Amino acid sequence: MKNNCVFCAIADGEIPSFKVYEDDLVLAYLDINPFSKGHCLVIPKVHTSGLVDTPDETLAAVIARVKKVAAHLKDALPCDGFTILQNNGEAAGQTVMHLHFHIVPRYGKEEIAFTSHKGDMDALKALAERIRM
Amino acid sequence: MKNNCVFCAIADGEIPSFKVYEDDLVLAYLDINPFSKGHCLVIPKVHTSGLVDTPDETLAAVIARVKKVAAHLKDALPCDGFTILQNNGEAAGQTVMHLHFHIVPRYGKEEIAFTSHKGDMDALKALAERIRM
Repeated sequence: MKNNCVFCAIADGEIPSFKVYEDDLVLAYLDINPFSKGHCLVIPKVHTSGLVDTPDETLAAVIARVKKVAAHLKDALPCDGFTILQNNGEAAGQTVMHLHFHIVPRYGKEEIAFTSHKGDMDALKALAERIRM
Repeated sequence: MKNNCVFCAIADGEIPSFKVYEDDLVLAYLDINPFSKGHCLVIPKVHTSGLVDTPDETLAAVIARVKKVAAHLKDALPCDGFTILQNNGEAAGQTVMHLHFHIVPRYGKEEIAFTSHKGDMDALKALAERIRM
């Protein structure tokens, strides 16, 4: 596996994912252990470990896609708002050392704990097909 | 107050803040009700309400400064990691409708609830002076 990194393997298609958006630079896919319905991860295809070691040009590309995917999710899910979350380092709970932005859809007044819930694979597959860009 | 917006007033210097970083486009300052020690907000000086209505060029400038300030905080505080958080809409808990990225420093294995704690103004002032870029 390239860079011994599961997100590089997802970006390469070596490991399948529930894709929502893809272009030359960036991939967005459903988190299989979502914090809320429609929770997506947005990653650069090139490997960087976190915010600090990512070139500004790559960051600009990724944040533009985070915006694009989030705007789409708002209408496609639909959701009422969303939280962007990006963890750096084990102390922040980063478990995969490949830069990733979480888009966490929010619904009404529902509070969320930003903790993972084991996803239903069939439901995730159906959702990805419905909201794919 | 311009745009009836407290963060525009902070950007204009009409309301004081515990500044950590400033340039032509962006201001970073300590959150006065921090989630953790050194919690900063990074805002564009131009008013936008959230991710979706912010031009890509402005987002690129802001995320580059988020990276720059976060890298500095890691050494200057120091902290072990950090979480970037950006809320969109009331459903996501956004209370000020001016785009802002939270940089939330993380320490060791300490779990945090991403809830505000009333800050000590003297301690915040001293901290801002110590870590100002």
